[in-house]
Amino acid sequence: MSKLASNLQIDTARLWSTIHDTATFGGTPKGGVRRLTLSAEDKQVRDWFRQALEQAGCEVHVDTLGNMFGLRRGRDMSKPPIGLGSHLDTQPTGGKFDGILGSLAALEVVRTLNDAGIETELPLCVANWTNEEGSRYAPAMMGSAAYVGDFTPEDILARKDIDGISVAEALDAIGYRGDTPLGAQKFTSFVELHIEQGPILEAENKTIGVVDSGQGVLWYDGKITGFESHAGSTPMQLRRDALGALSEIVLAVERIATELGPKAVGTIGEAVIARPSRNVIPGEIAFTIDMRSAEASIMDSLDKNVRAAAVEIAARRKVEIALDLVWRIEPTHFDPKLIDAVQTAASDLGYSHRRITSGAGHDSCNLATMMPAAMIFVPCKDGVSHNELEDAKEADCGAGANVLLHTVLALAGVAK
Amino acid sequence: MSKLASNLQIDTARLWSTIHDTATFGGTPKGGVRRLTLSAEDKQVRDWFRQALEQAGCEVHVDTLGNMFGLRRGRDMSKPPIGLGSHLDTQPTGGKFDGILGSLAALEVVRTLNDAGIETELPLCVANWTNEEGSRYAPAMMGSAAYVGDFTPEDILARKDIDGISVAEALDAIGYRGDTPLGAQKFTSFVELHIEQGPILEAENKTIGVVDSGQGVLWYDGKITGFESHAGSTPMQLRRDALGALSEIVLAVERIATELGPKAVGTIGEAVIARPSRNVIPGEIAFTIDMRSAEASIMDSLDKNVRAAAVEIAARRKVEIALDLVWRIEPTHFDPKLIDAVQTAASDLGYSHRRITSGAGHDSCNLATMMPAAMIFVPCKDGVSHNELEDAKEADCGAGANVLLHTVLALAGVAK
Repeated sequence: MSKLASNLQIDTARLWSTIHDTATFGGTPKGGVRRLTLSAEDKQVRDWFRQALEQAGCEVHVDTLGNMFGLRRGRDMSKPPIGLGSHLDTQPTGGKFDGILGSLAALEVVRTLNDAGIETELPLCVANWTNEEGSRYAPAMMGSAAYVGDFTPEDILARKDIDGISVAEALDAIGYRGDTPLGAQKFTSFVELHIEQGPILEAENKTIGVVDSGQGVLWYDGKITGFESHAGSTPMQLRRDALGALSEIVLAVERIATELGPKAVGTIGEAVIARPSRNVIPGEIAFTIDMRSAEASIMDSLDKNVRAAAVEIAARRKVEIALDLVWRIEPTHFDPKLIDAVQTAASDLGYSHRRITSGAGHDSCNLATMMPAAMIFVPCKDGVSHNELEDAKEADCGAGANVLLHTVLALAGVAK
Repeated sequence: MSKLASNLQIDTARLWSTIHDTATFGGTPKGGVRRLTLSAEDKQVRDWFRQALEQAGCEVHVDTLGNMFGLRRGRDMSKPPIGLGSHLDTQPTGGKFDGILGSLAALEVVRTLNDAGIETELPLCVANWTNEEGSRYAPAMMGSAAYVGDFTPEDILARKDIDGISVAEALDAIGYRGDTPLGAQKFTSFVELHIEQGPILEAENKTIGVVDSGQGVLWYDGKITGFESHAGSTPMQLRRDALGALSEIVLAVERIATELGPKAVGTIGEAVIARPSRNVIPGEIAFTIDMRSAEASIMDSLDKNVRAAAVEIAARRKVEIALDLVWRIEPTHFDPKLIDAVQTAASDLGYSHRRITSGAGHDSCNLATMMPAAMIFVPCKDGVSHNELEDAKEADCGAGANVLLHTVLALAGVAK
């Protein structure tokens, strides 16, 4: 690689200003962004992104599901491009960085290469995946999931939001139902920069997370059936309190995940008492469990141990506990060569870094089932995401974009 | 007392049929009763009750808050009557016995005395107290609470239900805003028959509960503030999970009440996660605590121990826990002479019996603050109440009414 290329740095100030400029599309008074997929605000940012890519010399095309691709030609057009990017949609009360950083950093990489007059061997292709968030349409990571064949385009196009508007109608309404057949844009490999959405990098004062895996997920729907009775007149020893049983399950999930840690987490995020009343012992509770690990064997242990705990608690407390596994996705193992490329780029650039597991799902977790893929994380403030308070430092965003640049250069090669 | 009077028995079959006849006013398909206070169904049962009392020779009058009184004259009208009765309103999905048994047994006592041609020395007064349940209007035991001066009639009349209808409007709508000033109907003493609403009598195979006390009540509103974060990307040791903290409080309340038992109970009946989501660690939970004991010193210990537990849990888990005591009522100690009268009646009639504490609040707990009062309990199936499945045996209801009859005769005296 030429000295020019190996010393190349993205323009952090330019990246930072694109982040803040585009944050006005759906910007909220609290400094967040509300940009639901395929909304008017999503059209605004998509139009801006298309124009910026075209001005940077990319050929932009859009597939059936609105996934956007900006191709920067390489010397060797016989091979599929190196993909880079993320998503531009947000949660209903989302922040300025989740997804957006990865998409705008990909644009910044192209701009930086243009400014330096660098041609890559392989072509590059900047991507903006449709509906990563899943807030308006299920499932989350919709565009990439369909891209890798988890869903047919017909299935996805027919899905409706809460107002009965289908994906097809929403795409047509903003002019983003493209001509490119789903899956026609191939990639040699794909690299995604993203904020961590967790507290680890910040806590350890590391700039770059070299993401080597994504957690598998176990989702359960649970129901506890005890016996509703009078809070005043039912002695303690004659109770069959559904909330007492739930409390033991909550603490069991916490203990099981901790014991199987550090590569395991477990959460009860929803718990609803049926017919709640201040002076009635809860008789029925519906709840969810979310357990994750990057290792399939740990996922098996999580599943086994939580089921055993539920059986023991139910028997001792004389309640019924039903646990229904509603979703299991296996862990993602990112490509070792790409992981090395990310780590080498971080090292060469002098950034502190550590291997990290992605706790959340990402488009690249879907893409990794079909092609070599990798991810780069940068810290976000207090680990907060999916929140208008989501924040990240300019220097960290710039560092992440530099790692993205040099990972892509390593994968694509420099022609001149 | 004449042999006729001392051998007198109520007509159990007649009592049983009035219970089932009136259960059609608001009867539900599952065999329960939905008869919210001052509703159209409440008017139906009130009209029926007024007519039945009048046909039994009582002078019926109604006070400002709809409390109904049916006076059966005695030989000595210079003294206030012996009161007997309960309430006819039900929970939204209530049963056929809660309150209703005591009201209809009071009517049955009058009918039995009429049939036997017995005049009492003191007059009797059958009462139906407005809104014991508190389901439509707060507070519960509204009519009796205002009667003893805990609330002004103006305050109560202005209270509104969930549809914005005031008590005054509801009373006018069904024609039960009466002329009798609140508190004008005096009593020498008051006796109330009620189902236990708990499992003790059934578990010990006793027919009659001689109620010597009513539990005091501590009600708290609680709030836990942790930190909402991503279920996938937040390591276990960096969480501030509000539901984990709640679970420890639930188990602490259970343990504290059990340790201070058997004369103590503690319940968390409501717990609501703010912005619940399957993949978000709960950051905020509102909850209630209900703790009760018939002994003031135990109530003090319950209060002290639960506050200490909350402080310890909050510090260890790095969450905030606010506990706000919103209601404290002291234990009720029923009148020793009236308790003896109930116990003597049960013994003389040959019914198995035991002293018992009322776990629930009752109109008689309010009345006991102003006059000698007592209660009689009979078993209910599985201790279930506030439920369409609420059930009681015909023989037990008849036994309770007989104890009511002979307690009232002992208190009122027999003229002829």
